[in-house]
Amino acid sequence: MTATEIVAAIEGGRTTSEAVVRACLDRIAARDADVHAWAYVDPEAAIAAARAIDRGSRRGPLAGVPFGVKDIIDTFDMPTEWGTPIHKGRQPERDAACVALSRKAGGVLLGKTVTTEFANLHPGPTRNPHDLTRTPAGSSSGSAAAVADFMVPLAIGTQTTGSTIRPASFCGVFGYRPTYGEHRMHGVMEASGSLDTLGILARSVEDIALYRDVLLGIPPEPIAPLGRIPHIALCRSHVWDKFEPTTRTLVEDASLRLARAGARITEFDLPADFARLHDAHRCISSFEFARTFTWEIENHWDEISDTLRGGRLNDGINGSFERYVAAKETAQECRARLDGLWGDIDVLLTPAAFGEAQVGFWAFEGVPLFQLWTSLHVPSVSLPVFKGPNGMPIGAQLIARRHDDRKLFACAQWAYQKLT
Amino acid sequence: MTATEIVAAIEGGRTTSEAVVRACLDRIAARDADVHAWAYVDPEAAIAAARAIDRGSRRGPLAGVPFGVKDIIDTFDMPTEWGTPIHKGRQPERDAACVALSRKAGGVLLGKTVTTEFANLHPGPTRNPHDLTRTPAGSSSGSAAAVADFMVPLAIGTQTTGSTIRPASFCGVFGYRPTYGEHRMHGVMEASGSLDTLGILARSVEDIALYRDVLLGIPPEPIAPLGRIPHIALCRSHVWDKFEPTTRTLVEDASLRLARAGARITEFDLPADFARLHDAHRCISSFEFARTFTWEIENHWDEISDTLRGGRLNDGINGSFERYVAAKETAQECRARLDGLWGDIDVLLTPAAFGEAQVGFWAFEGVPLFQLWTSLHVPSVSLPVFKGPNGMPIGAQLIARRHDDRKLFACAQWAYQKLT
Repeated sequence: MTATEIVAAIEGGRTTSEAVVRACLDRIAARDADVHAWAYVDPEAAIAAARAIDRGSRRGPLAGVPFGVKDIIDTFDMPTEWGTPIHKGRQPERDAACVALSRKAGGVLLGKTVTTEFANLHPGPTRNPHDLTRTPAGSSSGSAAAVADFMVPLAIGTQTTGSTIRPASFCGVFGYRPTYGEHRMHGVMEASGSLDTLGILARSVEDIALYRDVLLGIPPEPIAPLGRIPHIALCRSHVWDKFEPTTRTLVEDASLRLARAGARITEFDLPADFARLHDAHRCISSFEFARTFTWEIENHWDEISDTLRGGRLNDGINGSFERYVAAKETAQECRARLDGLWGDIDVLLTPAAFGEAQVGFWAFEGVPLFQLWTSLHVPSVSLPVFKGPNGMPIGAQLIARRHDDRKLFACAQWAYQKLT
Repeated sequence: MTATEIVAAIEGGRTTSEAVVRACLDRIAARDADVHAWAYVDPEAAIAAARAIDRGSRRGPLAGVPFGVKDIIDTFDMPTEWGTPIHKGRQPERDAACVALSRKAGGVLLGKTVTTEFANLHPGPTRNPHDLTRTPAGSSSGSAAAVADFMVPLAIGTQTTGSTIRPASFCGVFGYRPTYGEHRMHGVMEASGSLDTLGILARSVEDIALYRDVLLGIPPEPIAPLGRIPHIALCRSHVWDKFEPTTRTLVEDASLRLARAGARITEFDLPADFARLHDAHRCISSFEFARTFTWEIENHWDEISDTLRGGRLNDGINGSFERYVAAKETAQECRARLDGLWGDIDVLLTPAAFGEAQVGFWAFEGVPLFQLWTSLHVPSVSLPVFKGPNGMPIGAQLIARRHDDRKLFACAQWAYQKLT
């Protein structure tokens, strides 16, 4: 069931929060030894919270709905370990803003989902529930796998490059990366503050719209129909030749199907010099990341993975401040220019990953794709509508103008109905 | 002594870090029962760290220099209580990025300086060292008072509205609010993430330039002379009639003195519609603040001050998301427009406060002045160059274009020499 259906079923007396939570816990007990989506689960606390909801002690738009949060997000009642042995057993004294807002809305926290080390490259133990030999992608690996494997209907992730959209695509769930800066990040581990956002992993566009409003701390509004034919522009971007041929075919075919379903379909080319955003993103994220983690670098260098030490940290520690500032100015300039290029386009259509989940643990396919869109601060959704040559999921990514997240949901809902 | 002088004296063998630290601790012991600048001091740890520096175990651009940090900034070895009984005894497990960068550079942490409650309106116990019946201003009250009272040469504050520049003006020290987004905020309590920056309180422009680079995690560069006559533009802004008459006279007189000293002095008018930034700042900061502290609101409402509950929280909790997004778009638009208005102006000159520190504890004079500049994300410095009618300090504020912090320092150094 989706979160929206759970809320309705509990309100209608057809189930209880306790029953839903127990079903999730049973699924976790049956499957998580294989999937490894969870870093920490507290069944007793979850059942107690569900019973409190069932007794009516707390109402709200998520009343009784179980949720999970990536293990870089603070919780007052569970450890938050950031995917590193350095912070083993770390116990925050309060909830992150997004957790407190979820509980305020009646959500029932099941536990913490596996993150890659510091939400960066080094993978955790999570496997793709569609094929346990394959990666779930990262860095919100556990959040995507848990939702995909029916262990929980909603999970919070984060995104600094592609850490929500990519695992959503690989695991075949709905993923959402909001407009940069709208959601409070207090209590969420900072990776690169100029790029970090929350992310939502869910089972429907409706659930994403609902949970987005909960995490904004505003009364949820249902998705308003567009009221006209959506204008969807296929955007191949500078990295089109990096997508697997099947992925390119699937997305082009989807644009034809949407046209046949009544959408106005055009093509949209980003200005050629937006290719600078790839380097700009890498420069900004590495420079910031290496400073954010000064304490760990100075005191626990030996406990950091070789992947991270030789990659982002090596790049970032000696990064040039002048290049960093120039990269931020490039990103800012491209964002302002993109604002003027939308015309009457509602959303852009592009793939949500280069292709299917690979065999193994490596979790970071498609970085250039995400560098582009994440540094533009635009909201995006991954819709689980494609299957690749090995039967694994691939997402269609829809992207809207900054702050047009609600329009994005309306178009995503329409497109998902037409593509499935 | 300034930090720069301390580093040179230790390197030259004319003093030791231990001697400097002991002198600071003696001053704190003698004065802090009256000034109340410190929330927590750990003399033994500071002396041990100073001795380690003196033994040569750690070099760096701040080697041996004592520093203090506002009590909303995490430290692995001292509690961090955010100025609220709710977080009494809260002990982080790691250092904030800015603290780790300070220690990496050889700085010796003396302790935590008093903050207003959640760095917001409700004052702490700190008094103005120039007159104990008067306010030091807030929210970085203890950081400014400790530097003013010669308890420590450097302290970190933060600024979301005027929380560094204002207490610098009231306490007669140098204050610096950097370009938004350049310094990592990891481990610093978020108030309103779209506006928060670090702040530096110090005893010279050279010290600010040095500490800024340390906190950026880059090799410090000395201030490069401008190499030409500075172009300084007097900016009265929309709030000119709110400044006390003495303050207006002092700043206009300063502009004449700088002209006589060889500066090119012009006048700069902000576009009339920039007055919208006052409401925009209030809307953004209240909306974000009320969501950041959801956990405290839900679980500890009764322990929050009436000032905060009836003020910012009341405004923010029921704030309209549409108004919030419109306010962010207004701020973004004004920032982009200001970029195009500088011409060959190097810095703007405006007061750093409406007037002198008032009698009493109220810490938040001059909010409209700061709403304007803080929401524009521009860097600014307060120079302690004026005395008001009661002999209390008032600062001259210099403001530069985003990312022109180094040019700001060069102009500030020049102007300070000419005005004193």
